[in-house]
Amino acid sequence: MVARDFPDLSRLLSPRSVAILGASERPRSVGSDTLLNLAEHSDFDGQIFPVNPGRERVHGLRAYSAMSALPGPVDVAVVCLPADAVVGALRDCAAAGTGFAVVFTSGFGETGDEGRAVEAEMAEIARQSGMRIYGPNSPGLSNINRRLGLTFSPVFKNDTLGGGIGLVTQGGGLGRAFIQASERGIGVGLWCSTGNEADLTMADVVYHMVGDPDIKVIALLAEGFRDGPRFLAAARAAARAGKPVVAMKVGKSDYGVAATRSHTAALAGSAAVTSALFRQHGIVEVEDLDELIDTVALFERVGIAPRRGICVYSFSGGTAALAADMVGSAGLILSELAPGTRAGLRALAPSYAAVDNPVDLTTQVFTQDKLNRDCLSLVARDPATDVVLLPIPADYGPITDRSADDMVALAPDSPALLLPVWMSGHRAAGYATLNAAGLAPFRSLGKAVTALKRLIWRGDWSPSGTSTLALPAFPPGELDEAAAKAVLADLGLTVPEGRVVTSARQAGEAARGIGFPVVLKALVPGLLHKTEAGAVAVGLMDEQALAAAWGAMMTSLSAQGHRLERALVERMEQGPGVEVMAGLHRDPVFGPVVSFGLGGVMVEALSDVTHRAAPFGRDEALAMIDEIRGRALLGPLRGRPGADLGALADLLVILAALGARGDIAEMDLNPVRAGPAGATVLDAVILRAPTEIEGKARQ
Amino acid sequence: MVARDFPDLSRLLSPRSVAILGASERPRSVGSDTLLNLAEHSDFDGQIFPVNPGRERVHGLRAYSAMSALPGPVDVAVVCLPADAVVGALRDCAAAGTGFAVVFTSGFGETGDEGRAVEAEMAEIARQSGMRIYGPNSPGLSNINRRLGLTFSPVFKNDTLGGGIGLVTQGGGLGRAFIQASERGIGVGLWCSTGNEADLTMADVVYHMVGDPDIKVIALLAEGFRDGPRFLAAARAAARAGKPVVAMKVGKSDYGVAATRSHTAALAGSAAVTSALFRQHGIVEVEDLDELIDTVALFERVGIAPRRGICVYSFSGGTAALAADMVGSAGLILSELAPGTRAGLRALAPSYAAVDNPVDLTTQVFTQDKLNRDCLSLVARDPATDVVLLPIPADYGPITDRSADDMVALAPDSPALLLPVWMSGHRAAGYATLNAAGLAPFRSLGKAVTALKRLIWRGDWSPSGTSTLALPAFPPGELDEAAAKAVLADLGLTVPEGRVVTSARQAGEAARGIGFPVVLKALVPGLLHKTEAGAVAVGLMDEQALAAAWGAMMTSLSAQGHRLERALVERMEQGPGVEVMAGLHRDPVFGPVVSFGLGGVMVEALSDVTHRAAPFGRDEALAMIDEIRGRALLGPLRGRPGADLGALADLLVILAALGARGDIAEMDLNPVRAGPAGATVLDAVILRAPTEIEGKARQ
Repeated sequence: MVARDFPDLSRLLSPRSVAILGASERPRSVGSDTLLNLAEHSDFDGQIFPVNPGRERVHGLRAYSAMSALPGPVDVAVVCLPADAVVGALRDCAAAGTGFAVVFTSGFGETGDEGRAVEAEMAEIARQSGMRIYGPNSPGLSNINRRLGLTFSPVFKNDTLGGGIGLVTQGGGLGRAFIQASERGIGVGLWCSTGNEADLTMADVVYHMVGDPDIKVIALLAEGFRDGPRFLAAARAAARAGKPVVAMKVGKSDYGVAATRSHTAALAGSAAVTSALFRQHGIVEVEDLDELIDTVALFERVGIAPRRGICVYSFSGGTAALAADMVGSAGLILSELAPGTRAGLRALAPSYAAVDNPVDLTTQVFTQDKLNRDCLSLVARDPATDVVLLPIPADYGPITDRSADDMVALAPDSPALLLPVWMSGHRAAGYATLNAAGLAPFRSLGKAVTALKRLIWRGDWSPSGTSTLALPAFPPGELDEAAAKAVLADLGLTVPEGRVVTSARQAGEAARGIGFPVVLKALVPGLLHKTEAGAVAVGLMDEQALAAAWGAMMTSLSAQGHRLERALVERMEQGPGVEVMAGLHRDPVFGPVVSFGLGGVMVEALSDVTHRAAPFGRDEALAMIDEIRGRALLGPLRGRPGADLGALADLLVILAALGARGDIAEMDLNPVRAGPAGATVLDAVILRAPTEIEGKARQ
Repeated sequence: MVARDFPDLSRLLSPRSVAILGASERPRSVGSDTLLNLAEHSDFDGQIFPVNPGRERVHGLRAYSAMSALPGPVDVAVVCLPADAVVGALRDCAAAGTGFAVVFTSGFGETGDEGRAVEAEMAEIARQSGMRIYGPNSPGLSNINRRLGLTFSPVFKNDTLGGGIGLVTQGGGLGRAFIQASERGIGVGLWCSTGNEADLTMADVVYHMVGDPDIKVIALLAEGFRDGPRFLAAARAAARAGKPVVAMKVGKSDYGVAATRSHTAALAGSAAVTSALFRQHGIVEVEDLDELIDTVALFERVGIAPRRGICVYSFSGGTAALAADMVGSAGLILSELAPGTRAGLRALAPSYAAVDNPVDLTTQVFTQDKLNRDCLSLVARDPATDVVLLPIPADYGPITDRSADDMVALAPDSPALLLPVWMSGHRAAGYATLNAAGLAPFRSLGKAVTALKRLIWRGDWSPSGTSTLALPAFPPGELDEAAAKAVLADLGLTVPEGRVVTSARQAGEAARGIGFPVVLKALVPGLLHKTEAGAVAVGLMDEQALAAAWGAMMTSLSAQGHRLERALVERMEQGPGVEVMAGLHRDPVFGPVVSFGLGGVMVEALSDVTHRAAPFGRDEALAMIDEIRGRALLGPLRGRPGADLGALADLLVILAALGARGDIAEMDLNPVRAGPAGATVLDAVILRAPTEIEGKARQ
C-alpha cells in the first residue's frame, strides 16, 4: 500500500474557506454553534460562507441561498441539515467543486439497512466527484494546534491546550473525555471523529497524522474498522515513521458489538483477531479510556524507547513493596542498583531506610532540606535504571509537595525517566506542580505499571519481514480430505502416508503396504462431523480390526443416509507430539488471517488461539507460536524433547502466503501433530474462495 | 474456632487511660505528635500519662518518671522509644498491669533474624502477662468514629469524616491514601495498622470489626498473614455476620514477597493459595488500592445483595457502547428492559435515542427540563434492572451537572442501585454533588464494572458446609506407590487393579491375571523421578513386551545404582478420560490446603490449579472443579461424555478430611484419570507428617 491510496487531508484540517449548510442563529442549534465555533472561538482567518436560503445574514456574516450561489469552490462544506436533506446537499456541494464535506447529521447506517443504503449513495457521490466526505453522524474535528474546529460542540472554546497527541475517534463523548485531560497538561493537538465513515475512515486520518510533524503519538478509540486492510497499511506507515499508535477497541463482547453497530454502524470484528493484529503491527492496545489517556501521554513524553530497568522509589515502605510487587507481577524487571548508587544512598539516607530497589527512604528523608532531592538524583543517574517509578500514596502536605518539587527539578536532566504516581484523591499542590511541569502523574499504581509494560513492549517491538513463496497452484474441483492432503504435500507440508481405497479389500492391501497400526477415514461428500458420524476409526492394529472397522463404518454411514464408497487409509502417527491447529480464513474486517493454537479438543476447551494478518514471515510465525498460553506444552518439558517449532513456523508461513494469494476461503488444519522432528497434518479441510463468476452465480 | 480465641479489643480501641512512654515536646517527634494527637486533636476525655524520666511536665500535662510511678494500671501504653529500650519498657508496662501496649518503634523483624528474636520475646511477655501488644513497627490506630487516635501521624487531625468502613493495614502509607478518600465522602470509621504483629494480628482486628456495630464493611490491605488459620476463622465470623470483607494482598511476585518481608516482616505465602482461600471464605479480592477504595465504598453503600440485572444509561452513544461492552466482557448481564419501560422511554426521549439497554438518550435529553430525570426514573424502576450504570464520559458543564442532580434526587427512592462513573479529569460541580450525596462516583469505567462484578460475586457467594468423614487410619511405615495406592483404595478411591511382583516371572503371572495391556512400575526406595529414570513402562501389550520391559528396566536402574527388586504390575487404563491432579499440602501460612487442576504435563505447562483450605464439603469441591481454566476439558465436549465430576468431588473431600486430620505432610495424586464413570488414581505419592517425636528428633 502506498501513499497515493490515502488522500491529502490538509484542505480538510486547515481549510481556507468553509461553507456552513444550515447555518442558523437559533440558540444551541448545530448550525449556530458550528458557525460560532469557527467565527468567534477559533483562529480561523479564512472565508466563512453561511448557506441558508431563508436569511440574508447569519451571525453578522453574509448568507448564501445555496452552494451554487457561492463565489467559488470552498475547501470544506459543513452539512448541518436534517437527514433527508443531506444527500441532496452533498450533490450540490460536489457540483460546486467542494473539496471536503463534513456531515454531522445522524440517522443513517446506525439505524439499519435503509440508512446503510444512503451511506452507499454518499460514497458513490464521493467516488464520482472526487469530493471526499467526512461522516455522517460525526461530531466533527478539532485542529487544536491551529485553534480551528469544524464542530458544533459547545465546549470547543475550552480546547486551548494543543500538543503532540493526535486523537482519532468515531463518536464524540469518549473523545471529549480525552480532551479534558488538558487539565493535567495532556494536550491533544488534532482530534478527528469520523462517525459512520461513509467515505473517509479512521485509516485516512491515522495516515495523515503519521505525516503531520506536530503529532508525536496517535491515540485511537475505535468502535470498528470500515476498511481493515487500509487501516493496517496506515499502521505500517506509523511503524515506519517511528510514531507510536495506542488504541482502544470497543466491541469485545456481544453486547459491545451490538451497541457499536447501533452507534456508528461499525462492524466490530473479532476482538481476538483485532488484538492479535494490533500486536503484529506494533499497535499498543489498552483496555479503558483512562489507560488510553495515560499511556498516550507517556508515549508523547518518552517516544519509542526500550526502558527496561525500573527502580521503585518511595517514602512509604508498603507502597514501595506494592509497587515492586506489581512490577514483578507484570513480568517487568527491577534494576539492580550499582554499588555506587547504594553506597551513596546509604551515606545520605536515614539509617533504617531501604536502599535496595525498591528504595524506601521513609518520610524522614524530608526532615533535611535537599536530602530527598540528592537521593533521587543518585537513583536517576543509576546506570541500570531506565525508569524511576515514584508512587506517592497519600497527600502528606509539605512532604509530598516537596517530593513533587524535587521531581520537577530533576526531570529535565534526569537520564532515567521519572514516573510519578499520585495515588491519593487529594489534589494537593504537589499534584498540580507535577501536572504543570508536564509530568502528569498516573493516578493508579497498577495502571502506571501496565502503561510502563506497554511502553517497554513497544520499545522492544519491531516490524517483521514478509516472506514471498512461489507456491504450486491448486488442482480444480472440490477438495476432500485426501485431495486436501495431496495439496498440502505438494506445498511441502507433511501428511501421514495414506492411500485412497474403494473397498475393504483395497483397504487391507493399502494397510499392509503402509504398515499397521492404521487409521481409516471415510471420504463422503458433504459429511462434516466425521468423528461424530462414525466415519473415522483410529488405532487399527491388524487386518481383522480394519475389516471390522470398515463394516461398522458402512453400517453407521448407511444409517445416516450416506454410502461408504471411498475411504482414506493412513499410517497411525505415534510417538511424542502435541496436537496443535493452524488455520486460514478471510476475516470480514481484516481480510486473510492465519490462526494458530492448541489443537484437537483443546481449541474449543481452552480457546488458546492467536492470529496474524497474512502474509507474514518466519519471525512473525515464531512470535505467534510463542504467544499462545499453552506454549509450554510444546516443550521441552519433563525431559520430553520440544516440538519442532521451525517446522510449525514454516507451515504457518505457507498458510500466510496462501492467504495473500486469495484463492482459499478457509483452511483448517486440525489437529496438526507437532513432534520433535516435524509437524504432521492429521486432518485438513480446505474451502476454495468462490471465483468471481461463482460468486456472482451464488448471489 | 470460637470467640474466646479472639481478645476483646475495646480497651485498646476506646481506652479511658493512656500512658505515653517517651512523651516529648521536641517538634515533629513521635513522642510529641502522639501526645498532641491524643490531647488536642481528639475527643479523648480519659486520662493521659506522659512517661518521661527527665521531665516534670510534657505539653502541660504532669509527666511520670516510669510506668511504676503511675497511680494505677492504664488501658493502653504507647511506646515511643528507641528500639533498644522497647523490650524493657514492655516488661515495665506488663508489670504495671497495662491492658495493651502499642509499639510504634521499627527496627525489629523487618531487619532480620535478630529482630525476629526480639519479637518472639515480646510475644512471650504478652503470653505470660496477659498484656496484649500491638506492633511493633506500627503507625498506630485511629478510631475515627470516636475521634480518637493512638498515632503519631501529623495529619491525623484531618481525619474527621468517620463512617462504616473498618480499615486494616500493616503499614501506614497505603492506609493513609485510603483515609484520604474522605474527600469523596468515603469514610473510614476505624483504622488499625498492625505493623509487625509480634502479638496481636490482623485477624484480631478483623474479628473485632465483625462485632463492631458501627462497621459495615471491612477493608483489608495485607502484606502477609502471621496466623493464617485464625485469619480464616475471623473471615468465617464475618461471613456469618453478613459483613463483607474486601482485601488487597501484596506479595504476588518474588519482588513483592521480598519487599514485604523487609517492610513488616510478613510471610507473604503463595498468591494463588491466598486468592483461592479468599474465594472459599467469601473475601472479595481486589488488585489495586483504588479498587480497594471504590469496592469497599460500594459495599458500604449497598451491603451484600445479588444485583445481577445491569442497565447502562448514558447520553453518549460511544460511552454507552463501551460500558455495555465491558459488562459483557466481565460476564455480567444487561437487563432486558420491560416493554413498559421501553415504551415509556420511547414516549419521552428524543426520536433517535436508543431506548434498549444500553440506553443512549443523547445530550438532547437535557434540552427539556426534567426529561432526563423522568427517563432515569423509568429505568430505575424497571423490574429487570437491579443496577443502573451511569457513565459520564466528560464534563459538559450544565448538562453533566444536571445529570448529577437527577441521580442525587432519584437515588434515595430508587429500587435499582444508581452507580455513576465520572470519567473526566474535570472535577466539575456535578462531581462534587455526587460525592456530597454519598454516591461517590467511580473514576474508571472498567474499574466500576469490575467492582460491580465483585459485588455480584459476593451477593451470590454463600459459605459451604464441611463434611466430616470417618476415615481409616494409615498403616505404619514408608508408603511406596503400591502401599500408597492400597491406602487410597482403603479410603474408597479407585486405583488400577495391580499386584506387587518381585521377578519377571511373577510379573507375567500378574499380567495374565489382570489382563493385557499392562503398566510396569519399579518400586525402588528413594527413587523420585520414575519416568525419567526408566522405571515406568506403559502400554505393554503381551508377555513378550512385559519381559522385555523388565529387562530394560533392570539395565536402566542398575546403570543408576538401583536394583529392580520389586515392581507394580497394573492394568493399563484406557478409554476416554482427562488427566487431572489432586494434592494436599501443609501451607506455611494457612495450614492444610487441597489442590486440584489439570494433570500430567499440563500442571507444569498451564499452571491451571486451584486450592482450598481443608476441611471442606462436596459443594466446595465442585466449586474447585468448576473454577479451573481448563474446566471445559472435563466435558462433555464434542459428543464425548463428560468426566464423572461427582467422583472427583468425592476424592477432593477425602483429601480435605485427611488434611484436617493432620497425619499427612503431602499427598500428590497425579495423574488422576477422570473418566465418565469415575476417577482412577494412576500415580500417588504420600508423605506422612512427622510425628511430634520424629519432628523433634529431626531438629
